[in-house]
Amino acid sequence: MRDVTVIGVGLTKFGELWDKSFRQLIAEAGAKAILDSGIEGKEIDAMYVGSMSSGRFVGQEHVGALVADASGFSNTHIPSTRIESACASGGLAIRQGYLSIASGMNDIVVVGGMEKMNDVVGASATETLATAADQEWEAFFGATFPGLYAMIATKHMHDYGTTKEQLAQVAVKNHANGALNPYAQYQREITLEQVMNATTVAYPLGLLDCSPVTDGAASIILCTTDKAKDYINKPVKIIGSGQASDSLALHARREICTLDSTVYASKMAYKQANLTPKDIDLAEVHDCFTIAEICAIEDLGFVKKGEGGKAIENKITTRDGPLPVNTSGGLKSKGHPVGATGVAQIIEIVLQLQGRAEKRQVKDAKIGLAHNVGGSGASCTVHILEAM
Amino acid sequence: MRDVTVIGVGLTKFGELWDKSFRQLIAEAGAKAILDSGIEGKEIDAMYVGSMSSGRFVGQEHVGALVADASGFSNTHIPSTRIESACASGGLAIRQGYLSIASGMNDIVVVGGMEKMNDVVGASATETLATAADQEWEAFFGATFPGLYAMIATKHMHDYGTTKEQLAQVAVKNHANGALNPYAQYQREITLEQVMNATTVAYPLGLLDCSPVTDGAASIILCTTDKAKDYINKPVKIIGSGQASDSLALHARREICTLDSTVYASKMAYKQANLTPKDIDLAEVHDCFTIAEICAIEDLGFVKKGEGGKAIENKITTRDGPLPVNTSGGLKSKGHPVGATGVAQIIEIVLQLQGRAEKRQVKDAKIGLAHNVGGSGASCTVHILEAM
Repeated sequence: MRDVTVIGVGLTKFGELWDKSFRQLIAEAGAKAILDSGIEGKEIDAMYVGSMSSGRFVGQEHVGALVADASGFSNTHIPSTRIESACASGGLAIRQGYLSIASGMNDIVVVGGMEKMNDVVGASATETLATAADQEWEAFFGATFPGLYAMIATKHMHDYGTTKEQLAQVAVKNHANGALNPYAQYQREITLEQVMNATTVAYPLGLLDCSPVTDGAASIILCTTDKAKDYINKPVKIIGSGQASDSLALHARREICTLDSTVYASKMAYKQANLTPKDIDLAEVHDCFTIAEICAIEDLGFVKKGEGGKAIENKITTRDGPLPVNTSGGLKSKGHPVGATGVAQIIEIVLQLQGRAEKRQVKDAKIGLAHNVGGSGASCTVHILEAM
Repeated sequence: MRDVTVIGVGLTKFGELWDKSFRQLIAEAGAKAILDSGIEGKEIDAMYVGSMSSGRFVGQEHVGALVADASGFSNTHIPSTRIESACASGGLAIRQGYLSIASGMNDIVVVGGMEKMNDVVGASATETLATAADQEWEAFFGATFPGLYAMIATKHMHDYGTTKEQLAQVAVKNHANGALNPYAQYQREITLEQVMNATTVAYPLGLLDCSPVTDGAASIILCTTDKAKDYINKPVKIIGSGQASDSLALHARREICTLDSTVYASKMAYKQANLTPKDIDLAEVHDCFTIAEICAIEDLGFVKKGEGGKAIENKITTRDGPLPVNTSGGLKSKGHPVGATGVAQIIEIVLQLQGRAEKRQVKDAKIGLAHNVGGSGASCTVHILEAM
């Protein structure tokens, strides 16, 4: 397999973007990434794009072709492929772009991710998001993701003594980071009291334990490593790529507080990178709900099972802690345009490893990890990156 | 790049399958393919699945995870990835499975395709299919695929003298083939008079010029070529894989009677296989409408531009002609469960090259081609296969 490297990144503002269309968003993110890398359009061999439910959100499938078209590449006729894996669509798109270069088929690939969620008609965004759950066993009976993650949270509290305060501290931390991110949907800090007293959505999760409904797009340029330094001085190499699946329905899992897809995907990535969790300097993890970040840092091996809540309380994962997690603001504060999220996570890691994260910059980070989850954990990708 | 080979195939009956659910269909096709190959479940490294609009047809996204789950592989946590490219979703899924083996990441991969179209609620199947057209420039204004292909047909008749009779002869030929296919939706011959006198859908296309709304699933097992003969005696090697894109909207094309995505994807595949169109012994092409088969045989280089209608009239592409096309019955007679179609095309080529096509068997076929189109031609894959 050939080595693969990130040589450019581009992001739109995340938020309620009423004045921009679906195609405008991805064209903007793609153009920014191309400019960032210094490649010329004619050098692009293929495109990959992650989008969860554009067919339901904006009435548009065939998104691979749309992206090539909207970006001005319809005349070059390059292959363009859409990947869907619920909220992990972006992470999976990166992995497919990665494999297409590793195979030797392509040298330079654009990977994008996007979702325009606020324009949804005929159903609520929550109802469309529930198509990522098991239609026959969960969604049909009215289950939505706040409810599914609330069950995980309740069980975690019961089994490990995790508290509602610890959940709230995840939101407080991530908003403190997001306040420094000019692309974030919510660029403001929140207090523990605000999170604790917010309207309950599904106990124990309140409104401020939940990531928002977001429009946005993200794009990166992947390049075979032997050519990367022809374009930029500090490329960031993908040294591990893992992907795993699990049962779609929560009730069919071995154990609901452990996301086995995270465990398996991270093992695959650690093995390829020849690293252990202790070698990771910072991570972007999938905090669609506050409990999800607690499970993630456990399942990725950063702390022991059941100790995630304490790790948050002990500020292990703050921006100046030993293992900064979600310096971008995470899904909670940066926003969660589902198909874009996995790509945006990689962008934060790249910016941090290149020393370009401005007010959010952490010190001496050499190796970063990005963790992207679909649904309640039926799919997951983990990527490990290292500055060259 | 490592060589990749097909070692097993599995297909459900195509048709109105009211008694089978979405997950039952893919599990059935996958199980048949696994049994056909003789592999054990634990040998599978990854799954890929093509589905166009499961979110709208059956309210289920996150289809990669669903497929692994429904097939009984949730405990193995293998990566499973859904690809969407409208009616070319199956062809693109095969290409991604192919690249994942070519890269060295995987040795054995299951590729599936499926669509359950008859269960659609809240919109017609035609309306959901129109999400493969350009939402902002075509679908919003009421354009559907019969209308878009009718414009291509009208222009083809104007420019090249193609007749409504020649269009009708495509349907007659494909039904003659489908009548011999036990998996086909319509296992009956039709006459030229029936096609000519059928209700007009969008002039010049009548009801019998259009492929139907279909439920069905298809699956193949891909394996690195150096291990293929460990499993079966007559594996079929993928010697060329091409993919291309074009503008989503028809009006933005250079020329609407030529599908440039077909031209570019086939050039890529011919180049990799080191072959020309003359070397192809039989082909499955994307006849979503009768005009589409005429354009396809031209754009694939089998006949000159404008001579597709005459080639049909002169019976060049019948089952006992010099270049049999759509021996399976094609989308017209076999049925067109959009996500499954690209995979089902490969299955027909494999069965023919292995001498397993029973009553449809053509003589002395060594090299076959499968051509899968998304929408009105904004995406396309071409695969060339050879018996080992």
